[in-house]
Amino acid sequence: MRQRLRVGMVGGGRNAFIGAVHRLAMRLDDQIALVAGALSSDPENAAVSAAEIGIVPERSYADYREMARVEAMRSDGIEAVVIVTPNHLHAPIATPFLEAGIDVICDKPLSTTLTDAEALVSLARAKNRKFVVTLNNTGYAMVRQAREMVAAGELGRIVAVHAAYIQDWLTLPIDAEGQKQAEWRTDPARAGQSAVLADIGVHAFNLASFVSGCQAEQVFADLFTAVPGRRLDDNAHVLVRWTGEARGTILASQTSPGHYNDLSVRIYGDKAGLEWSGLRPEELRFSRHGEETRTLVRGGHGASEESRRVSRMPAAHPEGYIEAFANLYRDAADIIRAHRAGEAVDAARAAQVPDVVDGARGVKFVAAAVASSSAGGAWAPALFP
Amino acid sequence: MRQRLRVGMVGGGRNAFIGAVHRLAMRLDDQIALVAGALSSDPENAAVSAAEIGIVPERSYADYREMARVEAMRSDGIEAVVIVTPNHLHAPIATPFLEAGIDVICDKPLSTTLTDAEALVSLARAKNRKFVVTLNNTGYAMVRQAREMVAAGELGRIVAVHAAYIQDWLTLPIDAEGQKQAEWRTDPARAGQSAVLADIGVHAFNLASFVSGCQAEQVFADLFTAVPGRRLDDNAHVLVRWTGEARGTILASQTSPGHYNDLSVRIYGDKAGLEWSGLRPEELRFSRHGEETRTLVRGGHGASEESRRVSRMPAAHPEGYIEAFANLYRDAADIIRAHRAGEAVDAARAAQVPDVVDGARGVKFVAAAVASSSAGGAWAPALFP
Amino acid sequence: MRQRLRVGMVGGGRNAFIGAVHRLAMRLDDQIALVAGALSSDPENAAVSAAEIGIVPERSYADYREMARVEAMRSDGIEAVVIVTPNHLHAPIATPFLEAGIDVICDKPLSTTLTDAEALVSLARAKNRKFVVTLNNTGYAMVRQAREMVAAGELGRIVAVHAAYIQDWLTLPIDAEGQKQAEWRTDPARAGQSAVLADIGVHAFNLASFVSGCQAEQVFADLFTAVPGRRLDDNAHVLVRWTGEARGTILASQTSPGHYNDLSVRIYGDKAGLEWSGLRPEELRFSRHGEETRTLVRGGHGASEESRRVSRMPAAHPEGYIEAFANLYRDAADIIRAHRAGEAVDAARAAQVPDVVDGARGVKFVAAAVASSSAGGAWAPALFP
Amino acid sequence: MRQRLRVGMVGGGRNAFIGAVHRLAMRLDDQIALVAGALSSDPENAAVSAAEIGIVPERSYADYREMARVEAMRSDGIEAVVIVTPNHLHAPIATPFLEAGIDVICDKPLSTTLTDAEALVSLARAKNRKFVVTLNNTGYAMVRQAREMVAAGELGRIVAVHAAYIQDWLTLPIDAEGQKQAEWRTDPARAGQSAVLADIGVHAFNLASFVSGCQAEQVFADLFTAVPGRRLDDNAHVLVRWTGEARGTILASQTSPGHYNDLSVRIYGDKAGLEWSGLRPEELRFSRHGEETRTLVRGGHGASEESRRVSRMPAAHPEGYIEAFANLYRDAADIIRAHRAGEAVDAARAAQVPDVVDGARGVKFVAAAVASSSAGGAWAPALFP
Repeated sequence: MRQRLRVGMVGGGRNAFIGAVHRLAMRLDDQIALVAGALSSDPENAAVSAAEIGIVPERSYADYREMARVEAMRSDGIEAVVIVTPNHLHAPIATPFLEAGIDVICDKPLSTTLTDAEALVSLARAKNRKFVVTLNNTGYAMVRQAREMVAAGELGRIVAVHAAYIQDWLTLPIDAEGQKQAEWRTDPARAGQSAVLADIGVHAFNLASFVSGCQAEQVFADLFTAVPGRRLDDNAHVLVRWTGEARGTILASQTSPGHYNDLSVRIYGDKAGLEWSGLRPEELRFSRHGEETRTLVRGGHGASEESRRVSRMPAAHPEGYIEAFANLYRDAADIIRAHRAGEAVDAARAAQVPDVVDGARGVKFVAAAVASSSAGGAWAPALFP
Repeated sequence: MRQRLRVGMVGGGRNAFIGAVHRLAMRLDDQIALVAGALSSDPENAAVSAAEIGIVPERSYADYREMARVEAMRSDGIEAVVIVTPNHLHAPIATPFLEAGIDVICDKPLSTTLTDAEALVSLARAKNRKFVVTLNNTGYAMVRQAREMVAAGELGRIVAVHAAYIQDWLTLPIDAEGQKQAEWRTDPARAGQSAVLADIGVHAFNLASFVSGCQAEQVFADLFTAVPGRRLDDNAHVLVRWTGEARGTILASQTSPGHYNDLSVRIYGDKAGLEWSGLRPEELRFSRHGEETRTLVRGGHGASEESRRVSRMPAAHPEGYIEAFANLYRDAADIIRAHRAGEAVDAARAAQVPDVVDGARGVKFVAAAVASSSAGGAWAPALFP
Repeated sequence: MRQRLRVGMVGGGRNAFIGAVHRLAMRLDDQIALVAGALSSDPENAAVSAAEIGIVPERSYADYREMARVEAMRSDGIEAVVIVTPNHLHAPIATPFLEAGIDVICDKPLSTTLTDAEALVSLARAKNRKFVVTLNNTGYAMVRQAREMVAAGELGRIVAVHAAYIQDWLTLPIDAEGQKQAEWRTDPARAGQSAVLADIGVHAFNLASFVSGCQAEQVFADLFTAVPGRRLDDNAHVLVRWTGEARGTILASQTSPGHYNDLSVRIYGDKAGLEWSGLRPEELRFSRHGEETRTLVRGGHGASEESRRVSRMPAAHPEGYIEAFANLYRDAADIIRAHRAGEAVDAARAAQVPDVVDGARGVKFVAAAVASSSAGGAWAPALFP
Repeated sequence: MRQRLRVGMVGGGRNAFIGAVHRLAMRLDDQIALVAGALSSDPENAAVSAAEIGIVPERSYADYREMARVEAMRSDGIEAVVIVTPNHLHAPIATPFLEAGIDVICDKPLSTTLTDAEALVSLARAKNRKFVVTLNNTGYAMVRQAREMVAAGELGRIVAVHAAYIQDWLTLPIDAEGQKQAEWRTDPARAGQSAVLADIGVHAFNLASFVSGCQAEQVFADLFTAVPGRRLDDNAHVLVRWTGEARGTILASQTSPGHYNDLSVRIYGDKAGLEWSGLRPEELRFSRHGEETRTLVRGGHGASEESRRVSRMPAAHPEGYIEAFANLYRDAADIIRAHRAGEAVDAARAAQVPDVVDGARGVKFVAAAVASSSAGGAWAPALFP
């Protein structure tokens, strides 16, 4: 058994949401050891949270800068840091770890400003560090298969690319009523310029881009706030002109009753179309023009090599969100260990894992959409260099 | 049994598509007698086509103007004309019939120019004639129920309204290869300024508007042609700002493999959301915020009075496209007979049937989208006065 | 236009259910003229009902025997009689019409006793009359296609054949509370020995048999009554051993909340499997072993010649129950007209239309299931000679 | 953090299927430490397999009896053994561990003979040991919710209970061609008297029973072998008379193209019906008679307390097979730790976890079905005392 990757976590204390998800995901395949943490900015919460998840007291830090400094000096120090704080802290936290030679696994969005995103791209390159952004839907086996099929030309010339992420949890003004997850996600100081795009829009955008291989060249956005008094937008309707000739839409809503977490992507080429939904992640609908629609199932007949590589269960023993997230972690662990060991990193494998540039593209997308919408009607350039 | 409404048809000869659909729809409930026709501009085809469907030779006309003139003079002349020709002929044909005091049932789009649409609205009013536009999806029982639910406030304040009509039949350049249906629908002279919006976009737009009760105030459109060499667009991505506060999208595509005729609408309010798809027209998904999604079924538990009125079969004995179209015809027959008899027309019933103003709104929507897209990025006013 | 087939109807007066369905179905394609009727055993209801549907008074009969006698003598007399009464009257009514040389179109089940069924088979043969039993689900385009695919060997050797018809409308004791449809359907005197099998089980059985090409050799049945006090069964669980090697189940229930009219069939061979549901009648799920499941759509890519022949609409303009029923009527009209004209009847076409032998097979199936269940546990022979 | 439960595993070496699944499931929640193993009867394979999963050499055993003896003597010895061998070894392996005071977690079916099953029930009671049978579908959150709803009387008096488990993987004679999983599962010496019931039928039976609260009183079975030359059955059609008044069916097939692992249950009462499918495990369809069908979603509106307790993710971040299996392991760990610590075991919690009696009921079901089918047509008693 290969040595497990040693990681520390910043954020993710008690009552936090996404930190616990990361821990489930990193545990599933037993390739990662979570050995240190600065789980909360509140020292007591940090300590209690660390104890609960088995981090020894001496490696539970009240301050992430201290954690970066101390861990970098230990012979058994962490090799990578996992950042699961609110959005505005991603860049300030990632920076000292990168500088200390520690690789980074950071939740999305990469940052709340484009300046920060550009700086992180530069710094990661300068320090030659791996920087994974957990745009986790790329971990679904059938998303990987969809990407392979597009890349192999099975859809032909791509004509249209659409993605949507639709939720209902902000239908009522729960942010104004003190619900913590809602509060920070709709706070410009912590979420950034757009709440709905930073929280879920970047997932839809990244999914569309990951599968289609296209980047956004221009966007036209209509961002709006359905709930009176909310500090940021909760709905985004965005037209996209993709690289190549494709056009499409990115829709994001957090006020759509009947949808909990409804992420989907549809791609059409001149030879075929395909569709995937996070509500039925084990399936891919594939339609060659002139033939019947086929339902491809993870692990089943017609499953691709890559989708089989990231499957643990036979077909129709459903894998889900945690498994997809774990796929990202398993690949991330492989890449970071190889890189730190001076081994060549498999390029095909690396391409499956969103990195700091993919993260920055998401930030650029948000910035461009905000610019377009603010201008009251103009296409805005959206391509990250 | 009430006397059947006497109608004549213009267009719809052999090999035409939509004329035969109209005839099935008008026959189903036995409220309409098709007794005259100018089924083709080719006299021989007109005669043969008429004979095939049981129109007596003396009432088969080679010219629609002649038909209007002669039928208006007969004591047993037609009471209404059904127009099922290519788009550009709708206005020229409707005009002489209106002037002859004959009511009109016209396929969509109402016309290819806004000027024509405005003229038809004025003329129908001046002549006090009923003018039905067969935006036939309004005939589905569950679309009617959806409309009732929105009107009754079950969704609360409307926040978002989306509709889409997705097809695959123009994925390949069959128009360039002489397929007749494709040829005229992509010809600016016969289809109008936008092929995809005139052919299917107006259906999506009308459906969104019919159910939500909103009209388009402004649109921003990205129209494009996926198939090289095609004379008109085959895809439309349109952002809409609706009257009231709602925003949304209208998408139309004829180059999306995997979709034959995929029409759908989604509406979200601050109390509930609802969704309907023409692929499963018997169902309505309804989600009150904070409750489980319910599947309402035509004729089943929770079916509304209006949806029951337009049902012929018990729940889950599926009704479909023809039945929906027939609902439109049955209501149209009732309205026209009442109007011609000088009886009061039931206002609630009349509101279910798209008229010349609804048709003109569709034409205005197309014109606004074309204007926006041509301008290369500007919101265009879309409200028909 | 070919002369329409002249038919009369017995049963189907006001408030009856299935008679109105038959009239919609026979009207859709305009191949049938309903010119006479004995619509009710109550003379006044018969007269009023006839007037409502446009039957002239002189051809509205209070007695079906009188109708058979008089119509047989008219030069423009009916060519076929449509029987839509409760089950126990099918045989007594069909008999005088057959004897008068009039063809028969009879609702299912053919009769309430096997003796009656056998007599009708003999009489129809002796009189050389066409006898159609409206096992109407055979009219669905995709059911026809399924049958073709099995017959063409696409499934290989058939291994398992299952069908089910599940309803909820008798969940409560509405028969005891005077609901008329429920009352006669659960009355041994009018429904026969099994309510659930006579009403819906024969549909499931016929569908399984029609598609698979198999007949029931033996059945083992557990019939039971879920609602206390009901006079007949309302649920049937039946194991079947089919001709050839296939085995399977026929399930019927009228007390299953959540199901209005849920008819389905599943057939598996050693090469492929297929599934069809009356809730989504436009689709056929087809799975070659080792390949992805394909969704075949009526009118779409992969649609067979026969399914195209009985389609009126393009793919995804849904056709439903009435259209399927109309397919049966259109074929019945063709067959009866050809037969009466002394023309050869197309054998392939004739095989699509359930006849008196198919009806008798259903009666035999019911009788065998009742015998098995009554015996408390024994396989019963079910093959109609 | 509570001390993790120390377990050892018998079976589950390289190339085995289900052992790896158990390890994923026990790892997810970090409540179990796998510290010992007799992973293969082949000593070399055992050693290599142990090394691969981090079991230290001294606790890797070539013989399970040795493992039971040695581990029982260690102060840090295993508290429970996990048995993941072929069916015929479950009883011989469980026995020495029970006798050594070690609790048991055993894969299904409990045993291949009823005698063995009875002996295990007696021994577990005599030794006062916990004995969990991993009938893992009981771990799905929405299965737990379904069970609660039935128990709370939401369905009323239960009338019908159906379950099915349909696969395709044995459509071709791969057992004869040396595929290892297929080979032992169709071998009477290792699988027992029925292949299809032992492999998947017991899952369907257990699911039906777990959710409905009913036990099988009598069964009538038609077991058969679709693939010529196969040593055991591959299809089972079973009628069931349940305790109380309900009746139903259990269907199992491994030769149905188009189905990978299609497990489902449907239960109808006189107040409501509910349906669950392992293909969409996050949903429960619930229909109160007279109301619209509701789709209950794990973690969503209407989710029950128990379903929330066993959820890790928000609604529509899909959980799947591994998570359900992990729910079973987490509960098993809690129960065994409490029991070993002399603490009271929460009865409601314990009732969620299938034990040796549930396992024995499955074995009795298989034996009864085999008896019925062999007798050529007789109801067989199926109730385990």
